Amino acid sequence: MAKADHISMSVIRRLPRYYRFLYDLKENGVVRISSRELSQRMGLTASQIRQDLNCFGGFGQQGYGYMVSQLYDEIGHILGMDRLSDTVLLGAGNMGRAIANHMDFESRGIRLTDIFDDSPQVIGQQIRGLTVRPISELETACQEHPPQVAILCIPKEAAPSIVERLLAVGVQGFWNFSHYDILYEHPGVIVENVHLGDSLMTLSYQLKTQRKM
Amino acid sequence: MAKADHISMSVIRRLPRYYRFLYDLKENGVVRISSRELSQRMGLTASQIRQDLNCFGGFGQQGYGYMVSQLYDEIGHILGMDRLSDTVLLGAGNMGRAIANHMDFESRGIRLTDIFDDSPQVIGQQIRGLTVRPISELETACQEHPPQVAILCIPKEAAPSIVERLLAVGVQGFWNFSHYDILYEHPGVIVENVHLGDSLMTLSYQLKTQRKM
Repeated sequence: MAKADHISMSVIRRLPRYYRFLYDLKENGVVRISSRELSQRMGLTASQIRQDLNCFGGFGQQGYGYMVSQLYDEIGHILGMDRLSDTVLLGAGNMGRAIANHMDFESRGIRLTDIFDDSPQVIGQQIRGLTVRPISELETACQEHPPQVAILCIPKEAAPSIVERLLAVGVQGFWNFSHYDILYEHPGVIVENVHLGDSLMTLSYQLKTQRKM
Repeated sequence: MAKADHISMSVIRRLPRYYRFLYDLKENGVVRISSRELSQRMGLTASQIRQDLNCFGGFGQQGYGYMVSQLYDEIGHILGMDRLSDTVLLGAGNMGRAIANHMDFESRGIRLTDIFDDSPQVIGQQIRGLTVRPISELETACQEHPPQVAILCIPKEAAPSIVERLLAVGVQGFWNFSHYDILYEHPGVIVENVHLGDSLMTLSYQLKTQRKM
């Protein structure tokens, strides 16, 4: 961790991928792996991997490789997976429900504390052990459990006013499925936008030109 | 389109984003936009935008800007949005259902033709106007409608054999939510992996370090 302050963002963006691969190796009982093997598995060069992991003080030993479990824990620690951020989910429609049921939040550094929706059909339903609350209770609920993160699975039109309210109760980061451009209105806020359509369009393009990206 | 053969993949990866922004401008009645305005809106430099769009023969005019609707259509054409790829969805659980109901497939170059699952609770249900079919009917169905694309919303363990079967019926591209590493087993296949967890981990990291990426 000694060098963690100097890590470039492109390295950080690769860390979740290392974390996933190391998890799989760990699950498959692999104790130790060389940078060459890891690179083949991940489609990176061995030198890239050594360079990336050296940013964190270097875990490998020449000719010996990396201890899978140790490296997994260390990357998890760097990513902050051992400290959970309290998180509210806005919108319990198809996408919100899928996200709530599908994601392994705890192993991604997230603790889901509340789910909100404005539809009477959905309010009161149980999702992942939480009762969906009316959006009118947002401020009260956030006083009970001040959230750091909000997941937005609401329509774009609803997003501007909800984002204002979430910022007012202290939310610092958004996982944004709504297509509302939060950063344009609120520069400086931490946002991860998920644009599934972009990924699908890129796939369509590759198919039509039969180019691998 | 004259120059389209020489476009770098990093430009292509930005096109869906241009396409989204232009769609919004079009919806808001904007007819014409300067590269400076578009750059402020998108958080890119004006010179980057001019460079990107010049790859396609240059649509803008000095001091006049871009015609929104024309540029939108042209980027859609480059991305192949005007030719739909027949597509099957594998897995009608939470994620598959959300994807089926949530995505605007047609405007992303995709025509959903069939949905498959192996759970008796789900088979026979209607999703997006399609009846969920048993996975045992995959080969028969694909003879009726040969698909180019498969969307994988199945567990990782189920993926290897399903991918083999899909490749055997002629599927060329995968939109992969399953976490199974298709490319490692089948190099050369076109794959867009969606790792929602990676995005969430990056968000967690930024929150813990309070760094914008």
